[in-house]
Amino acid sequence: MNTDPVELTAQLIRCPSVTPEEGGAIQLLHGLLQDAGFTCTRVDRNGIANLYARWGTEGPVLGFNGHTDVVPTGDPATWQHDPFGAAIVDGCMYGRGACDMKSGVAAFAAAAIDHVAGTPPGSVVLAITGDEEGDGVDGTAAILDWMQQTGERLDACIVGEPTCPTKMGEMIKIGRRGSMTVWITAQGRQGHSAYPQNARNPIHALIALLDTLIAFDLDDASDHFEPTSVQVTGFDTGNTANNVVPATSKAMLNIRFNDAHTSAGLLDWIDAAVADVTAQTGVTFTLETKVSGESFVTPPGPLSRMIQDAVAAETGVTPVLSTSGGTSDARFIRSHCPVVEVGLVGQSMHQADEHVRVDDIQTLKAIYSHILQDFAP
Amino acid sequence: MNTDPVELTAQLIRCPSVTPEEGGAIQLLHGLLQDAGFTCTRVDRNGIANLYARWGTEGPVLGFNGHTDVVPTGDPATWQHDPFGAAIVDGCMYGRGACDMKSGVAAFAAAAIDHVAGTPPGSVVLAITGDEEGDGVDGTAAILDWMQQTGERLDACIVGEPTCPTKMGEMIKIGRRGSMTVWITAQGRQGHSAYPQNARNPIHALIALLDTLIAFDLDDASDHFEPTSVQVTGFDTGNTANNVVPATSKAMLNIRFNDAHTSAGLLDWIDAAVADVTAQTGVTFTLETKVSGESFVTPPGPLSRMIQDAVAAETGVTPVLSTSGGTSDARFIRSHCPVVEVGLVGQSMHQADEHVRVDDIQTLKAIYSHILQDFAP
Ligand SMILES: [Zn+2]
Ligand SMILES: [Zn+2]
Repeated sequence: MNTDPVELTAQLIRCPSVTPEEGGAIQLLHGLLQDAGFTCTRVDRNGIANLYARWGTEGPVLGFNGHTDVVPTGDPATWQHDPFGAAIVDGCMYGRGACDMKSGVAAFAAAAIDHVAGTPPGSVVLAITGDEEGDGVDGTAAILDWMQQTGERLDACIVGEPTCPTKMGEMIKIGRRGSMTVWITAQGRQGHSAYPQNARNPIHALIALLDTLIAFDLDDASDHFEPTSVQVTGFDTGNTANNVVPATSKAMLNIRFNDAHTSAGLLDWIDAAVADVTAQTGVTFTLETKVSGESFVTPPGPLSRMIQDAVAAETGVTPVLSTSGGTSDARFIRSHCPVVEVGLVGQSMHQADEHVRVDDIQTLKAIYSHILQDFAP
Repeated sequence: MNTDPVELTAQLIRCPSVTPEEGGAIQLLHGLLQDAGFTCTRVDRNGIANLYARWGTEGPVLGFNGHTDVVPTGDPATWQHDPFGAAIVDGCMYGRGACDMKSGVAAFAAAAIDHVAGTPPGSVVLAITGDEEGDGVDGTAAILDWMQQTGERLDACIVGEPTCPTKMGEMIKIGRRGSMTVWITAQGRQGHSAYPQNARNPIHALIALLDTLIAFDLDDASDHFEPTSVQVTGFDTGNTANNVVPATSKAMLNIRFNDAHTSAGLLDWIDAAVADVTAQTGVTFTLETKVSGESFVTPPGPLSRMIQDAVAAETGVTPVLSTSGGTSDARFIRSHCPVVEVGLVGQSMHQADEHVRVDDIQTLKAIYSHILQDFAP
């Protein structure tokens, strides 16, 4: 058997599965995997389509995780190619989801279909969700909830997200930094800029607070992590009167934190800085926090070594173990089993004219086949 | 003769002279002063109505300056009283311009009309503009230009703006701090908050810049001035994506500076701080500057002493000499002749239900009469 992952990627790109729309993508995979002998279960929740496909009943169980939903195209005029056309030009396939991550799903689906055709030992699970680019609450999390209820277990899981900055094979991810966003509202007292003693400038207080937070050296890079990064991504006041000290001002803070921190610890740190500034200025603050995920790592070991070997065998490059980048559904899976991410070059993800090298899709399928072979030889 | 300044204030309030509308206010004064023997000249420029009224041909020449234009009412629903009604309730007259400064104009017009009826020595000039609350470029500045062309000279000038924070007689103004506004645009490089090394965060650079500027101790209070005040009155980014480092961010800085500074010197200071931050961060800045006025002072001397004595005689309170507050047209007059501001309680200026105590208008007329008497006895 030789299932073509390139053709399957094209078919998936032609499904307009912009979050939270299913767009035919989950259905397409459902039919294909069922025909290949997988037991398929739709694990939908709150209108989100999710698919759990299992081949085999014995251990060990290797899982693959990925998503078929994609981010919106943005202004179609910024695209040279049809975002849902899957055109191939000069060896690259174009379309929304071309690298993030319909190609990754197609590659592991094709590898798994071919693999199980040989009735190998062990089991193979494909856990595919339609809600990764949205809030993610009804996607992989829903599948894991259902697995817990039904007693389904994986021994290890591979997430097929793009993991390479520029060149196929150069990087796999064994963890992720945590991510949290804090919206800060400073409440001062309005006044005339000529009489600052009668006002409490919330912008000055926010500047003092944020200057403290961004200047603080939280940590150095640790064994597997880049240093924690604190970025102010918003600061807005909405005051146009140049001689008026406004009553309120707002800022937005995005923190990517390594395993030296938890979101709770960081919030304590921010609360302490807030208390200091309030004591000095009289300006009060309210915080709203959203934690997208805690930091986690699957320490280097048999799983990552096996994957490194597979990548090296298929690409000639030994990938570095990284925890860089944003969040992924690995943050949910990590409490279920060891999880490693290995995939394509992510350079064009979420951009106009998102694309993937056709050769890289074939290489990725070969890597996944190699891993399937090595996992239960 | 006993011209009633309260009735004249009411008549002026009923003229809807919201900047730049003349609203009948200048015309009303024109007729009144002409009838009283003043030579009246309309010194209009670019559609702004201005009135120059002179009685007498001999020296010394005492001038009064004021404006009949008013700021907009804002939402009429926030007013308990008709903004153009001049209703008197519990001893207070309500309306836009009640304290800033139709009452001041009425008080010096009434005092001057009564004064010249006695054919006193010297001359009296009333220079009244319809453009103080706007940009002010075609108001008192236009009158002064015309005076220069025609050889008209004042020996001293009194501006009738409200000068008392809470109580009649407590304060007169012998100068003003300078005022300038700087709009700062920071140009960084957009990027993902998870990869700050690939972005240049313009918000961080602005925070660093502004923190330096507001923390810097420019000066202490000097003999006649409060310390220089630097207030950030705006900070806006317009980015709602919490994981995106935006490309640009903007801030607005309002500086009230005493006689230790000039606007040019302060701009040099800001430019140097900008260069430092650019060198450290790679974020570049563009500045747009508006100087509303340089700082100035009419040092305490015969004029301020004479006015202090007049105020003390009429109110029982010896006023302090101040340079506090925003700008006024005294900033134009100061290069023509010594200028002092003396007027009413300004507490409700520019607010809803702006009002003035009726008794205070009479007291202010008495103060102006006293000054007219003492100036050329
Ligand atoms: Zn993805
Ligand atoms: Zn005024």
